[in-house]
Amino acid sequence: MAEKEKSNALKARLPRGLVDRHAGAIKAADRMIATIRGIYELYGFEPVETPLIEYTDALGKFLPDQDRPNEGVFSFQDDDEQWLSLRYDLTAPLARFVAENFDQLPKPYRSYRNGWVFRNEKPGPGRFRQFMQFDADTVGAASPAADAEMCMMMADTLEALGIQRGDYVIRVNNRKVLDGVMESIGLTGPENAGRRLSVLRAIDKLDKFGPEGVELLLGAGRKDESGDFTKGSGLDETAIKQVMSYVAAQDSVGNEAAVQRIRASAALGTSGVAGVEELDQIATIVGAAGYGERIKIDPSVVRGLEYYTGPVFEAELLFETVNEDGQPARFGSVGGGGRYDGLVGRFRSEPVPATGFSIGVSRLMAALSALGKISVEAEAGPVVVTVFDRDRMGEYQKMVKDLRDAGIRAELYLGGSGPKAQLKYADKRNSPCVIIQGSDEKAKGVVQVKDLALGKQMSAIIADNAAWREGRPAQVEVPEADLVATVRAIVERRAGE
Amino acid sequence: MAEKEKSNALKARLPRGLVDRHAGAIKAADRMIATIRGIYELYGFEPVETPLIEYTDALGKFLPDQDRPNEGVFSFQDDDEQWLSLRYDLTAPLARFVAENFDQLPKPYRSYRNGWVFRNEKPGPGRFRQFMQFDADTVGAASPAADAEMCMMMADTLEALGIQRGDYVIRVNNRKVLDGVMESIGLTGPENAGRRLSVLRAIDKLDKFGPEGVELLLGAGRKDESGDFTKGSGLDETAIKQVMSYVAAQDSVGNEAAVQRIRASAALGTSGVAGVEELDQIATIVGAAGYGERIKIDPSVVRGLEYYTGPVFEAELLFETVNEDGQPARFGSVGGGGRYDGLVGRFRSEPVPATGFSIGVSRLMAALSALGKISVEAEAGPVVVTVFDRDRMGEYQKMVKDLRDAGIRAELYLGGSGPKAQLKYADKRNSPCVIIQGSDEKAKGVVQVKDLALGKQMSAIIADNAAWREGRPAQVEVPEADLVATVRAIVERRAGE
Repeated sequence: MAEKEKSNALKARLPRGLVDRHAGAIKAADRMIATIRGIYELYGFEPVETPLIEYTDALGKFLPDQDRPNEGVFSFQDDDEQWLSLRYDLTAPLARFVAENFDQLPKPYRSYRNGWVFRNEKPGPGRFRQFMQFDADTVGAASPAADAEMCMMMADTLEALGIQRGDYVIRVNNRKVLDGVMESIGLTGPENAGRRLSVLRAIDKLDKFGPEGVELLLGAGRKDESGDFTKGSGLDETAIKQVMSYVAAQDSVGNEAAVQRIRASAALGTSGVAGVEELDQIATIVGAAGYGERIKIDPSVVRGLEYYTGPVFEAELLFETVNEDGQPARFGSVGGGGRYDGLVGRFRSEPVPATGFSIGVSRLMAALSALGKISVEAEAGPVVVTVFDRDRMGEYQKMVKDLRDAGIRAELYLGGSGPKAQLKYADKRNSPCVIIQGSDEKAKGVVQVKDLALGKQMSAIIADNAAWREGRPAQVEVPEADLVATVRAIVERRAGE
Repeated sequence: MAEKEKSNALKARLPRGLVDRHAGAIKAADRMIATIRGIYELYGFEPVETPLIEYTDALGKFLPDQDRPNEGVFSFQDDDEQWLSLRYDLTAPLARFVAENFDQLPKPYRSYRNGWVFRNEKPGPGRFRQFMQFDADTVGAASPAADAEMCMMMADTLEALGIQRGDYVIRVNNRKVLDGVMESIGLTGPENAGRRLSVLRAIDKLDKFGPEGVELLLGAGRKDESGDFTKGSGLDETAIKQVMSYVAAQDSVGNEAAVQRIRASAALGTSGVAGVEELDQIATIVGAAGYGERIKIDPSVVRGLEYYTGPVFEAELLFETVNEDGQPARFGSVGGGGRYDGLVGRFRSEPVPATGFSIGVSRLMAALSALGKISVEAEAGPVVVTVFDRDRMGEYQKMVKDLRDAGIRAELYLGGSGPKAQLKYADKRNSPCVIIQGSDEKAKGVVQVKDLALGKQMSAIIADNAAWREGRPAQVEVPEADLVATVRAIVERRAGE
């Protein structure tokens, strides 16, 4: 019968690609977010938040690599038949916000926000359908100084989080330059959109496969060690040479040299000239401000989102970690962004300059955790006051209240189980200590305070079970009046460990 | 042409019932949430969060007053045709979480979370389709002591937020008692669901219309001052008397008297007996802990959600404010909750005891704002370093960096406008002061520091325009080396005002 009922019960499960967050991860994220916010505030940015639902047309279609019919976005119809979507990033909603409040906002308008975004994509390891981003944006500043500021702020943020200089780099490129490269090899117009994407993907692989790999991907294709073949872009030899002379600038020592080599490359094209000038200005600003080693002009940075119109950035962590296949690998990207001068302009009669940077919160948390800079382990739980005589609940409740009034996290055991299970419960709660008062103790006006952490240490040392029980080294009997002071000493000792 | 382009542009707008959050409101909410969290942590609760999307069947259908086809929930189909929904509260997802992780969790399991929830309802004043709740729940504790703890924690929370004792009350009733009332007047079975709802709504109006009003609503109906008629439940005289003998217990002085009068009322019914016992236990516990005046047994508390199975609570603010019609009125409810022993059980073969409390974050913020306990005004903005000579951007950037390195919020003006517009911008940013260095100042090795707040005060006093310009009382010229110290003094004076 119980079996049958069980099979009739609803299954408790989450849709794919969605996860719950536990105490340790929530608190670690809160600490990390507070640090990021502190840096952004120092830079004069202020918080602004948009709702999670927008009109589908207000978000636009800018997601990369959309191979599914609903194009990566969760959508549904409102009562009036208009289409609504869950936001897929924080940039498109910000553009709507700025356009809607354009005349009231100071310009340039610097703002930041963190929040959940949604992608209706196939989930995978470390790839979720709901994830958190932390964005900063400057709207109304056309100057590359605004892009440079974004990159410097990001460098300051990573260092404030404990990532050492040398363990990260902010890589910078420019979409106008990439457009120029496409132009120079004849890949213009909507009819070449697919081949442009294929070439950009090849360039994006420079870090992973080196120049030889990129060359293969630009031509006929590339076979990896396992024998898997990736079809190439099918460029002719001249075009391949042009693109390779451009990406070769990545090797340059220093930003000045990189800019010069990009400028001199065979594949710059006319639309790339303005882009190189912007890179030059960014290089000058970050150099003068002392960020030249950490912010690096890099021709291989692509960034997938379609709305970028100028400089694009990528924050990459350089220290090694172990990848999904168990191989050592660089940690990789924890965020990126760029200039999107057209996104606010969609709502207005003129383009509005805008640039922004987006941090992938869980990627960055994973990095900080790997570096030992943040702990996602659960903290110590509350002190548990156990219940031995159910008719004295009021007195136990009073002990809990006295502890709380002294600022000590404390709770009354509210379950229905006996003494042994209550101690097990306290253990599961990771409590620093439990309070016990049976009728004997009550008669003597005392309480037992059992130090759970010390108890574990001692039991590891003391082999003799009988001696252990007799001695009870981690349990003290104190007068009721000394309860708070005794507990406080244990809690403080544990916090100091 | 510009006109035509404008009319072709996409309109920047939000769907009805959704709003953006500005800096002041975000920071005020963060402070409030931190205070609430502090109290919950002290009580031994730990954070846990669920995603915003769940399987529709996992959420169940428990919303009150659903008069729309999609029953108040935003829903959409996944790729595999299964229905997904945005959560409409934080309780149903927590039930799914607990059921899914049942064996790993300590029991009782105390947890808290704040987050956005969604209702696909007709929006109205103060009624949004996305709003924030802050919930605490204890799962696995059948004892009314767990319900009493919820109510006491809520009282502590309201006081920690600055709401005076006497300005709030936590009202407590029990669904089992209400079920007993229905039973006693013959309204059992699914065929009477509509009439039960009508009677419960009448009882719920006791605070608003008094006993006379409730009596009319239980019978033929009630006409208000404007002449609008509300159809009644159509109970006969005996039934009305029974219900009225029950609700009359609200008048009692003290919880003990209230429990006794409910117990003695003509309309208790058999299923109400257990409910009254639970109310009695809650009254005893909160009385012993000194909360007897703040936590009040009240037979008129109903709570709309269908999943409650035992004690129900409502946190009500008693101070007067002005309602939508401009009339003075009590501020009213800022949260509530109750016991929902069946909600986790839907996923298992047995019921699982659970009780919780949910705070409406924006309602509570509005209350704190009305009481002057929290400010939703924007804080002072950053110091603005203005740009007079565009070829000296690097030097201006250095000033900004020096200020930030000293922990002072500062930004470089990154727009394209001239000196006057830059001062206007700083004003709009609510900056404490602006830094000015033209070529004259540069030659002398000095900077101008203009105190914007002081400037406004002075300009209100000094009538003579010429004298004002001459004296520049709110502007000082200091050596470059004194920039940080001068600015710090202004920022600190302003913070102290």
